[in-house]
Amino acid sequence: MRYIKVFAPGTVANLGCGFDVMGLTLDGVGDLLEVGIEEGAGGLVIRNRSGKELPAKNEDNVITPAVMALLGAYEKPVRVEVTILEKIAPGSGIGSSAASSAAAVWGVNELLGRPFSGERLVEFAMMGEALIGGTSHADNVGPAVLGGVVLIRGYEPLDIVRLPVPEGFFYAVVHPDIVVSTKQAREVLPREVPLHDAVTQWGNVGGLVAGFALGDVALIGRSMHDVVAEPYRKGFIPGYDVLKEGVLAEGALAMNIAGSGPSIFALAADEAVAQRVAQRMRAHFARPGIGCKIYAGRVSNCGARIVE
Amino acid sequence: MRYIKVFAPGTVANLGCGFDVMGLTLDGVGDLLEVGIEEGAGGLVIRNRSGKELPAKNEDNVITPAVMALLGAYEKPVRVEVTILEKIAPGSGIGSSAASSAAAVWGVNELLGRPFSGERLVEFAMMGEALIGGTSHADNVGPAVLGGVVLIRGYEPLDIVRLPVPEGFFYAVVHPDIVVSTKQAREVLPREVPLHDAVTQWGNVGGLVAGFALGDVALIGRSMHDVVAEPYRKGFIPGYDVLKEGVLAEGALAMNIAGSGPSIFALAADEAVAQRVAQRMRAHFARPGIGCKIYAGRVSNCGARIVE
Repeated sequence: MRYIKVFAPGTVANLGCGFDVMGLTLDGVGDLLEVGIEEGAGGLVIRNRSGKELPAKNEDNVITPAVMALLGAYEKPVRVEVTILEKIAPGSGIGSSAASSAAAVWGVNELLGRPFSGERLVEFAMMGEALIGGTSHADNVGPAVLGGVVLIRGYEPLDIVRLPVPEGFFYAVVHPDIVVSTKQAREVLPREVPLHDAVTQWGNVGGLVAGFALGDVALIGRSMHDVVAEPYRKGFIPGYDVLKEGVLAEGALAMNIAGSGPSIFALAADEAVAQRVAQRMRAHFARPGIGCKIYAGRVSNCGARIVE
Repeated sequence: MRYIKVFAPGTVANLGCGFDVMGLTLDGVGDLLEVGIEEGAGGLVIRNRSGKELPAKNEDNVITPAVMALLGAYEKPVRVEVTILEKIAPGSGIGSSAASSAAAVWGVNELLGRPFSGERLVEFAMMGEALIGGTSHADNVGPAVLGGVVLIRGYEPLDIVRLPVPEGFFYAVVHPDIVVSTKQAREVLPREVPLHDAVTQWGNVGGLVAGFALGDVALIGRSMHDVVAEPYRKGFIPGYDVLKEGVLAEGALAMNIAGSGPSIFALAADEAVAQRVAQRMRAHFARPGIGCKIYAGRVSNCGARIVE
């Protein structure tokens, strides 16, 4: 067996208006896996030493369908051993499952001599998302593999556009101790969007993409509005509107729900603002006695990678 | 009175997926106006020497509300005389009314010493669009004033993002002799969009904006799909699907309906392809005996401007 340690970052999907099509990479938070392979043999072993509770059976772990998809495409027998060393809390809304799938397939590909492109690795990692969500999305696994800001232009076929992240761009994330299942978060959404709202949304998606592509931080902030999911999903989060008002008053460019929630993210052009916002988020949930984890750091251009 | 001659270009609104939020500037086709002002006096005179049929009454001409909006903001008396010398055929779907409004306000602003920004001029010109459409859109007047590719991020307040046009980017446009009123074209649209289709659309809007911003011509082509308006509006245009197949087979990057139709545009990375596509468009409509005008040329970064 040959082994490497692989890190894949946490990610924020949707970015407000970019519902199901955009995701962004967080620096300083993610999953750390030891990945080992042996060619010629078979089998997949997954060990959990992260201290986080994960499915007892291998086949219920997102790593399994992701790695099996890769091995299926590789067409030669490979034995894979994965040890999960550090893990984002499951259900955090910052791409916990995506980070595991991304790190696992990225590591196996690296050990095999990189037979697959980054885009193919995203497709493999999507199989892990399908296991938990029923449908396979790429808005977390895309950035977890590739880094930066990722636009999923379309799924048939998968068409991923990488956008640069402006220099000096920071996030604050809060993961409150509230349980909102992906299923609940889906079911609260309307099945149809009034045409007027849809037009508003894609104007904002255009603005958001232009903001990243042109490095216009103010435009990113102005565009990060969601008229489709946020009005419904914010109901799961106590005091959401009050918190948003406070976070924007602290100088954040925008605040919105991370993925399907319950985590919330904010973006800022200043590190001190991101730190203050994270503290404000913690205080907001502490008041009604809701525990939470907070994260703050730089938005990252780096996706999955080898670490020592 | 001081006079200048002003040209404002034809434009294509929507660009497929960018329904109501995007527009693009055509080179080599537009309106030519002589604009004169006299400060201290009042009144607006509009003369039509274009040979095209236009409303008999001043107040029914789009130029009137556009210029009156500018003069209202200027707050000092100005007499304006506009002579329409050349005019895109009304109802062509390539921004005929927008070109008149844009040229008029641009010319008056120039003669007054540029008291207003380009964005304000777009707002004034939008009043002309409101006269004919009932609602004021900026997806034709935006590029007619500013040039290039324009994204209307939002309307409240008006937020216009200019995107660069890649070098070597060409259009073909056909204006068939079919009457489709803007009202008809609006009424055929569904009032609600299934969420899945809305997501598809904003993935494509993101791709289109990224394509322009990053200069990725192939991405522009892949993104220029419309699942919201084209499926309904193409019913007004005989043999639309057959034509589209042929146009793409000629090497065009994309084909779609220009604005609310009945004109159709195609984009190409090669001038010869654009020329061939325009001929194919003409032949398509000639077969069932429908006359048409065709245009082909470069996509332009230049909006309204003084000409000698």
